[in-house]
Amino acid sequence: MPIETDALIIGAGPVGLFQVFQLGLLEVNCHVIDALPSPGGQCIELYADKPIYDIPGLLRTTGRELTASLLAQIKPFNAPFHLGQVVSQIETQADGRFQVSTSKGQQFTTKVIIIAAGVGAFQPKLLKIEGLSKFENSRLFYHATPPEGVVGEQVVVIGGDDAALNCAIDLANSGQAKSITLLHRRDIFQARQAAPELIAKVHALNEAKALHLMVGQATGFTEQAGKLTAVQVTGIDGLTQLVQADKLLVYLGLSPKLGPLADWGLAMERKQIAVDTEKFGTSVPGIFAVGDINSYPGKKKLILSGFHECALAAFGAANIVFPGKNPQLEYTTSSTRLHRLLGVGGQDSGETNS
Amino acid sequence: MPIETDALIIGAGPVGLFQVFQLGLLEVNCHVIDALPSPGGQCIELYADKPIYDIPGLLRTTGRELTASLLAQIKPFNAPFHLGQVVSQIETQADGRFQVSTSKGQQFTTKVIIIAAGVGAFQPKLLKIEGLSKFENSRLFYHATPPEGVVGEQVVVIGGDDAALNCAIDLANSGQAKSITLLHRRDIFQARQAAPELIAKVHALNEAKALHLMVGQATGFTEQAGKLTAVQVTGIDGLTQLVQADKLLVYLGLSPKLGPLADWGLAMERKQIAVDTEKFGTSVPGIFAVGDINSYPGKKKLILSGFHECALAAFGAANIVFPGKNPQLEYTTSSTRLHRLLGVGGQDSGETNS
Repeated sequence: MPIETDALIIGAGPVGLFQVFQLGLLEVNCHVIDALPSPGGQCIELYADKPIYDIPGLLRTTGRELTASLLAQIKPFNAPFHLGQVVSQIETQADGRFQVSTSKGQQFTTKVIIIAAGVGAFQPKLLKIEGLSKFENSRLFYHATPPEGVVGEQVVVIGGDDAALNCAIDLANSGQAKSITLLHRRDIFQARQAAPELIAKVHALNEAKALHLMVGQATGFTEQAGKLTAVQVTGIDGLTQLVQADKLLVYLGLSPKLGPLADWGLAMERKQIAVDTEKFGTSVPGIFAVGDINSYPGKKKLILSGFHECALAAFGAANIVFPGKNPQLEYTTSSTRLHRLLGVGGQDSGETNS
Repeated sequence: MPIETDALIIGAGPVGLFQVFQLGLLEVNCHVIDALPSPGGQCIELYADKPIYDIPGLLRTTGRELTASLLAQIKPFNAPFHLGQVVSQIETQADGRFQVSTSKGQQFTTKVIIIAAGVGAFQPKLLKIEGLSKFENSRLFYHATPPEGVVGEQVVVIGGDDAALNCAIDLANSGQAKSITLLHRRDIFQARQAAPELIAKVHALNEAKALHLMVGQATGFTEQAGKLTAVQVTGIDGLTQLVQADKLLVYLGLSPKLGPLADWGLAMERKQIAVDTEKFGTSVPGIFAVGDINSYPGKKKLILSGFHECALAAFGAANIVFPGKNPQLEYTTSSTRLHRLLGVGGQDSGETNS
């Protein structure tokens, strides 16, 4: 049975998260879908621990901190998240509602859709070795969080960023694997793609022989009776060697793909979804687009602009969900209705008069 | 000599403050004017200590806290503030720049004007007693912060809100006045217009005879040789009495006035300034309007919308200040130029690549 909802938000980046808040204030219930295994979008994938200075009222935050703050802010609305899946199909029903299916087979019936998909769904970059893909999800895993059970196995982790190093460190700390190799095409100390404290930890684990650091590129593999046995590594000197491997955990980064979004019949402008600036509606009534994925005259890809866009899109959505009700703006400072929704009761209405 | 500047911001509320930040990132220097004696606008005047829940990323803040955060955020740009004055005149020069004068006689020559005046300039509500106004600024003061020198004087403070009580408490603590009367038309304990801790302090000072609480309305005055001698107070019972007074400090609240703004020839829509949604420009090239004072299809009077509006207005302003330069959006997370401007050097450029 499909899940019935007022609104479906596609994308759990900062703007998608704040969309939950703005819909919630108007009592529009919603579900959230994201391709990644956890909320945060670009904030987590591209600058989790990098400083951000231009969120109004936050002198300095990071992608991770901002995500945590927004999750805390939307908590009163209990919006269910459907993670690790992308929207595969959207159909309009006879009653005007949308039937939405995801790559995990989840189905929704929704009155409105709000696309907050940023630069698109983040998809892992693949290891380009001919014939290797047949091992995917059995011996080969991309951006697995946490890595699959590895008791007694020879594990090769490929990559040099925070995600790769965290995986290797977690494996070493759990002590279940028979061996752990961390393979990167450059020396991780020189590459400096990961946080210094993670590099230091990996260095210590390497010294303690709890894992094995290796520089080179995976260029082939060997198998026996349909089972992966080793990965072929080509060094900087051009020489190849085989590294025994039962399992490959690959972290080559994520790259955004607009994916099926491009086929939904929405008017586009230079790969962005064209919207109005009154309600941030697309060319399809009932579908809105907010944040980096939309386009309108003057558009700047700023998180703070996305926040404004979802406030106005929420009113557009509420007009569809509650036809004829024409919801009015109330303020969180003074509205007892909003205090009840936010679970912060006990405030006076806050009118000032002399 | 007029002050020469790239941009003049009218209004130091939250949106006017964040406008400084957005202009600063584009290296547009600016000055800020406000009618009130300190920054914060409605945030300070209407809900200084009331909770605000809808600033994205701030689970709960107050008008005072948000103002302090924004002041910290714009500190790197050192924008001069010109407080306690309103714009009295704007003229366009032959070279396209604007000549602006304020009620304090300050003059500016500026390339752009950004109006962030909220609901208008906050003006103190006046004590309506015929003939009293001749004492203004000698014996009669509205919203004086801090109150003028009162050594050996009989002072009557009129009002029941935080500002009035703070004034009475400060006077009592300084011990300079000969006598202090706090006059309000209602019992301040029943009226509950002020913060409970201030009411408690006033109560204690009254018990200790450090001040004198009085219920009633000021309805007249007496004078001798052109000098104020007493204020006539009418009680709830309709009886009048005279209270000796050398000085009246009046806190009857502030009410917003659009003031001369309404006469600047800007296109208006229902008392709001009509703007486009690309750069939030008004009908006069070079004059922008952001925050609660503007109007466009879909407009909601939200602080977070004002933040978005000033980001886009900053680009509009920069195009005028630096003609032909077409400034591009850079991110505070990754731009070394912005790090230098913000004084947060020592960061890598922050590009992520595998």
